[in-house]
Amino acid sequence: MPIVVQKYGGSSLADADSIKRVAQRITETKKAGNDVVVAVSAMGDSTDELLDLATEVSPLPPARELDMLMTAGERISMALVAMAISDLGYTARSFTGSQAGVITTAVHGNAKIIDVTPGRITEAIGKGHIVIVAGFQGVSQDTKEITTLGRGGTDTTAVALAAALGAQVCEIYTDVDGVFTADPRIVPAARKIHRISNEEMLELAASGSKVLHLRSVEYARRFDMPIHVRSSFSHKEGTIVTDQPAPEGEPVEAPIIAGVAHDRSEAKITVVGVPDTTGKAAQIFTALAVAEINIDMIVQNVSATETGLTDISFTLPKTHGTTAMQTLQRISGTVGFTGLLYDDQIGKLSLVGAGMRSNPGVSATFFRALAETEVNIEMISTSEIRISVITRADRLDEAARAVHTAFGLDSTDPGGEAVVYGGTGR
Amino acid sequence: MPIVVQKYGGSSLADADSIKRVAQRITETKKAGNDVVVAVSAMGDSTDELLDLATEVSPLPPARELDMLMTAGERISMALVAMAISDLGYTARSFTGSQAGVITTAVHGNAKIIDVTPGRITEAIGKGHIVIVAGFQGVSQDTKEITTLGRGGTDTTAVALAAALGAQVCEIYTDVDGVFTADPRIVPAARKIHRISNEEMLELAASGSKVLHLRSVEYARRFDMPIHVRSSFSHKEGTIVTDQPAPEGEPVEAPIIAGVAHDRSEAKITVVGVPDTTGKAAQIFTALAVAEINIDMIVQNVSATETGLTDISFTLPKTHGTTAMQTLQRISGTVGFTGLLYDDQIGKLSLVGAGMRSNPGVSATFFRALAETEVNIEMISTSEIRISVITRADRLDEAARAVHTAFGLDSTDPGGEAVVYGGTGR
Repeated sequence: MPIVVQKYGGSSLADADSIKRVAQRITETKKAGNDVVVAVSAMGDSTDELLDLATEVSPLPPARELDMLMTAGERISMALVAMAISDLGYTARSFTGSQAGVITTAVHGNAKIIDVTPGRITEAIGKGHIVIVAGFQGVSQDTKEITTLGRGGTDTTAVALAAALGAQVCEIYTDVDGVFTADPRIVPAARKIHRISNEEMLELAASGSKVLHLRSVEYARRFDMPIHVRSSFSHKEGTIVTDQPAPEGEPVEAPIIAGVAHDRSEAKITVVGVPDTTGKAAQIFTALAVAEINIDMIVQNVSATETGLTDISFTLPKTHGTTAMQTLQRISGTVGFTGLLYDDQIGKLSLVGAGMRSNPGVSATFFRALAETEVNIEMISTSEIRISVITRADRLDEAARAVHTAFGLDSTDPGGEAVVYGGTGR
Repeated sequence: MPIVVQKYGGSSLADADSIKRVAQRITETKKAGNDVVVAVSAMGDSTDELLDLATEVSPLPPARELDMLMTAGERISMALVAMAISDLGYTARSFTGSQAGVITTAVHGNAKIIDVTPGRITEAIGKGHIVIVAGFQGVSQDTKEITTLGRGGTDTTAVALAAALGAQVCEIYTDVDGVFTADPRIVPAARKIHRISNEEMLELAASGSKVLHLRSVEYARRFDMPIHVRSSFSHKEGTIVTDQPAPEGEPVEAPIIAGVAHDRSEAKITVVGVPDTTGKAAQIFTALAVAEINIDMIVQNVSATETGLTDISFTLPKTHGTTAMQTLQRISGTVGFTGLLYDDQIGKLSLVGAGMRSNPGVSATFFRALAETEVNIEMISTSEIRISVITRADRLDEAARAVHTAFGLDSTDPGGEAVVYGGTGR
């Protein structure tokens, strides 16, 4: 029997009624002749509620205990989903990450899946049960400690299970109809993407698109596992993320540009008056790396020859802002720079498309669209299939709309696919 | 270093502030030179909230999934207690029942502890950590399924851990100051018992006293583990439950009567017009046993010789009432009785004391006290150290006060120990 893996996020499991609806959909898939394995997130806002409780008890809770706490969320939702399925006359068995054989690294709060040993799952499937697995969690390889995969980790759990079980497809159910050419809340003309490559999906996810967890796409690419991103609130086809060729008869969609992503979660730090001598940049970025700060874009100004000083700007997650500034202040004597500027009023706009490789005119069109909308570009970075720019945060929405239009991505059906775009739980 | 095991119930862990107070008490015990292992219940009413959610999703949830759900409650509280301890500058490690090596039978919802293999606990203690263990839960021996021990099970977890670790004492923290000679909400003159034998505590627990879980006392007796029942809201000495002799210099308390217990949780069923022939009672009680109904007291009337028919009455938990009536209706043809009566307006009053053995006048005093208060006795049952009677439910409180006074149990210090008496979470 073919195996289908499904993932339901917190917004699809907000209350008892939502859980019953999800159970209905799961049993429909079983009834259609599939073995079904489901990865679930915690219900609705319960993750945030647990976090609030932790903060009330301790301002800096130990990571091990935070993982122990957070994993209770999926335990609750998986048991309830199993009960709802049983109420529909099917048998279900729920398993924690540890029971399901999700083996991870030992990094609490941000563990990586090393292996999946789904012995108990295949045994339960063999007995005709529907299997529900707690997403977002696993057990560390050597220390046997409970770990979590970080926000969005249930997507990765689902893909890893699908790969380990040799599933046909991994269906990621969310509260939107699929992956869009832009966030429809900002670009109302955004269209649903029918089919997208892993490479493009990775760049979109890394550039701020929140529909899929970045690591789940990496995992899917590595194991060549097709992901079907779709809504748990409708039966519409969603977006297929895959590198496999489209089935025959289906129109081969090969647009130059896959979509536009935006990101407001970053800040910019400028290190002013850095002596323009060998090794200064290395000193700065080594100190930041040691402090485990993720750097995104970096720009070094051309040195002013008369002073021998230069400025270095970089972007980073706002959540790392305080630590980064403290780290830099500590090394200011050693490096010998003259000042630090912190700016959290920036936005990042990214254009992603595999077609960029063979279409040299893309960047020109991109910059022209921004210029015509009078959006100032503060930083630029590119990959083979992506161009990203930093703008003022309050100009980001308009910039996104202008670029979306310039590349012909706007929907021709104004009442069409665009629906509210949101997170996917975790 | 001596090991102290402590248990905190849900009412001691109702919110973040309560959890911090519990953490304070735990670290005081550690600071005083003990290794500390703590068993915790779920926070406040969270067990009931999870049960409500389950019922919303499915009217008859499968027991396996119910256990999976319920065990999330202790997981949350144990992680929070560990965080609060870490905030006080100590290190703590929380473990689920399964991680703590609590091995049980496979009966979901009412598993029994078979063994405790506390390898991870002793390892953590060896590293100087305070250990927090999820109460009420374990893992089944052969099937490796998550199980729960039934309401009140965390008391049993604590005693089992104390026995396995060779602890000096098992401290059961609750919201009352100890075990009382009666429920102070009903008998305001009730006194705190300083020291009580396991045997008497077992009879009190079996007769409706809710301070300690019955099975925890059985476990303590088997392993000769002293239990100290005390309040988490004060530093007063509580009640020591033990068969060990009192330390020298301490007054040897040996009252004839330990205390009075009451129970409103039972109902009475009368099977009317049972043919008075061999094997009829066996038919009735076999059918009830197969339906897993717990029978408490049984009375068979003297047969009316002219009809050859008799009535059989028995008491049982109200929660088993519907199932019992259905079971009896099914066998009414086979047994040939003429009717069934169901009465849930009864109360049970029990007098417990090891001194009964050598004091033949106890039952006379007991019945006289009830007679003088004009309380009608409907059924009687006795053990070596207990007399129980069934009365009308609305006469139970007065009966308890009369008996308490008749045996000289009333406190001479009216503003003294009597505090609100309550459950102990689970």
